[in-house]
Amino acid sequence: MKYDIAIIGGGPAGYNAAERAAANGLKTILFEMKELGGVCLNEGCIPTKTLLYSAKILNNINHASHYGIKGEFKPQPDIKQIIERKNKTVQTLTSGVAMKLKSMGITVVKGRAIVSGEKGDNLVVSCEGEEYHVNYLLLCMGSETIIPNIKGLSEVNYWTSKEALDITQLPQSITIIGGGVIGIEFASFFNSMGVKVVVIEMLPEILGVMDKETSAMLRKEYTKRGVDFRLNTKVVEVTSQEVIVEYKGKTEKIPTEQILVSIGRKAVTQQMGLESLNLKLNRGAVEVNEQMQTSHPQVYACGDITGYSLLAHTAIREGEVAINHILGRKDKMNYNSVPSVVYTNPELAGVGKTENELLADKTYFQVLKLPMAYSGRFVAENDGGGGILKLLIDEERRIIGCHALGNPASELIVIASMAIEKGLTVEEFQKQIFPHPTVGEMFHEVLFS
Amino acid sequence: MKYDIAIIGGGPAGYNAAERAAANGLKTILFEMKELGGVCLNEGCIPTKTLLYSAKILNNINHASHYGIKGEFKPQPDIKQIIERKNKTVQTLTSGVAMKLKSMGITVVKGRAIVSGEKGDNLVVSCEGEEYHVNYLLLCMGSETIIPNIKGLSEVNYWTSKEALDITQLPQSITIIGGGVIGIEFASFFNSMGVKVVVIEMLPEILGVMDKETSAMLRKEYTKRGVDFRLNTKVVEVTSQEVIVEYKGKTEKIPTEQILVSIGRKAVTQQMGLESLNLKLNRGAVEVNEQMQTSHPQVYACGDITGYSLLAHTAIREGEVAINHILGRKDKMNYNSVPSVVYTNPELAGVGKTENELLADKTYFQVLKLPMAYSGRFVAENDGGGGILKLLIDEERRIIGCHALGNPASELIVIASMAIEKGLTVEEFQKQIFPHPTVGEMFHEVLFS
Repeated sequence: MKYDIAIIGGGPAGYNAAERAAANGLKTILFEMKELGGVCLNEGCIPTKTLLYSAKILNNINHASHYGIKGEFKPQPDIKQIIERKNKTVQTLTSGVAMKLKSMGITVVKGRAIVSGEKGDNLVVSCEGEEYHVNYLLLCMGSETIIPNIKGLSEVNYWTSKEALDITQLPQSITIIGGGVIGIEFASFFNSMGVKVVVIEMLPEILGVMDKETSAMLRKEYTKRGVDFRLNTKVVEVTSQEVIVEYKGKTEKIPTEQILVSIGRKAVTQQMGLESLNLKLNRGAVEVNEQMQTSHPQVYACGDITGYSLLAHTAIREGEVAINHILGRKDKMNYNSVPSVVYTNPELAGVGKTENELLADKTYFQVLKLPMAYSGRFVAENDGGGGILKLLIDEERRIIGCHALGNPASELIVIASMAIEKGLTVEEFQKQIFPHPTVGEMFHEVLFS
Repeated sequence: MKYDIAIIGGGPAGYNAAERAAANGLKTILFEMKELGGVCLNEGCIPTKTLLYSAKILNNINHASHYGIKGEFKPQPDIKQIIERKNKTVQTLTSGVAMKLKSMGITVVKGRAIVSGEKGDNLVVSCEGEEYHVNYLLLCMGSETIIPNIKGLSEVNYWTSKEALDITQLPQSITIIGGGVIGIEFASFFNSMGVKVVVIEMLPEILGVMDKETSAMLRKEYTKRGVDFRLNTKVVEVTSQEVIVEYKGKTEKIPTEQILVSIGRKAVTQQMGLESLNLKLNRGAVEVNEQMQTSHPQVYACGDITGYSLLAHTAIREGEVAINHILGRKDKMNYNSVPSVVYTNPELAGVGKTENELLADKTYFQVLKLPMAYSGRFVAENDGGGGILKLLIDEERRIIGCHALGNPASELIVIASMAIEKGLTVEEFQKQIFPHPTVGEMFHEVLFS
């Protein structure tokens, strides 16, 4: 069977690229071996956010009396119902994706697709005994959880993010190995659910490449709420009842009912037949240029498989760039204004440069920074809540970075992303009108600070 | 005493302009006869938002079981505590303003300032027996509630928004005369508090100049929650127990415990000595040019006194434009991208053109529109919640309007405002990356719809 383009992997990169391809007249086939929506919709972004919203509701009830709402609340999480609601939400969204792909005339094949080299000008994909000939191939196979080589780990019933999203009972205690975004979002969830949480992080701060100052503020906030963070700490062994860690040369046994492994994710490039096309890899990920083109001119790769950003929204944009290039439209991928978010409560978000990067590059920059309490709306809705907004500007006074702690940072960070994308200076950005009262007005405040 | 600039009125227009003036080296004096922060901070935007947030918390508790949080909740609003918290929030913010003005070396005088004409090149302001000579005068006296001429109204103990924000007890029922933004925000609040609410609106739809489709959706949502909207209806008389209305020529008596008057606001221009400068007025408001300059070249006017927009954020920007003009910096006021927000739950927001305006102008436009349920984040956080996002585009495919119903529309509308301000086309705006999952991604969805 002959198609203009085959897309392998139905996550955000794949299903969005399929829509763009079909909308522009390309005969499109999409292969997915598990569920449409990929990790993001089925066991990542969306499921965690439904759980975290239940946690937020629980937090709100516990703080209701601060806002003049009285009652004998004693709220209890019903984890089965929380997970059921998550499943329902996921199902609504994945069937939405399936319906849309169908309505656009995209062929969706469920099964494991294998790249099987070239025949003439065509690329060949095999799946479930069928052979498909295509002009272009878009690889969107995504990533998988890295399982570290820790003594005893393979003998215990540990969770990854996938299993943690399908639990039927809350543990009494959980130790999270890895304090990156995934680890911290789960720490936030289990902490709200009343579970005793320990987070083990090898580095001196949680949340990897995020801004250090806001990361530390978030860590201190969750420390107050009872999360036990162990920084600069290495896990040396686990048993079914404890995690043995090493800190400054000393070992300690941390008793725990459950272990969650979240040290990171890696591109899926094995056993997909990629070797048949001799694609250039880079540290286990598929290498691409600014148009998302691999070393083979008819083959593109988008999303986690490129090992670059591992974010759904990056993947979506990469897919658009790839399809635009195939269609002969001028476009290129730009990572300067890709926002990152940690969906804790409060949310933490960042875009563009961090102070650490700029210091390491010895590049001049200036910091504009204010506490969120400068926003009347923030004060009205966050009794006693902290948080800051920080803008980094270059010597021409252009916005080059933004880091925010405080709700709704996830929604606000786009404003900074647009300012970076458009190359706005402080003086140009000052003219933007923000509705009053909003938390977004913080941008206006900080620009005049 | 001699100053570079005198500012009359310490609301958003006045106190922000004072900060800008002082930051740029102008010797600045600010007169305020009541409280710093004006209507906005003391009896408008901020107080209503603290009340509405308490209402939101109450709504959340009532819906907690949808999100898997169980308990015998029966939440009760403690109106005294809600009002106390409001007072505390207002005090925090107004003292913040006072501190900032002081730290910037701005002289703040409490008292009624009267414009007393000119002496040589100077303008003269009198206050509490003192005379002040200044180079420039900025009028920011704001607006006041319009009290309609309704039979019986002066004999009953009606509320305006001011009194409604300082209550000690909830009424059993309230009839709100005027379904504009203020009326609808109070309808939302009292409805959440369990009060029986009737809204009387003379026009065929609530919310005046806002987008008709989203206004009607919001009205239907609150109708479901029990608010009784009477459109095309005129109040002909009130008594201490009822409001008598006329609809299609028939009168009806609506029993009510309390009446709230919210038919609009008008510029404050009387008894301030403005006649001493012969300023040109326009329908009771001070007329200004694009630089906020009045008919007298040394006199500027900003905020509600110009009768134009009656929004705090417009006032703030107008103040900046006026000070920039005084400083000789190129700037002008542009109302095309000023957002408007209704802080109900869900929020409604709009910016730029409406369909009705464009139809009336016989201007070509296209509508891009999707339900909010296209956002995974929205679905995760709004069980069964409706809402839409709508973009209006011109024949060059530039964004010229945006109307949104659904939380957090107040924070998201700025994104559309920036797109309008920067003259983005659909294709340019499509390249903006929105973090996943956020409600903001709706822009991306709708741009590709």
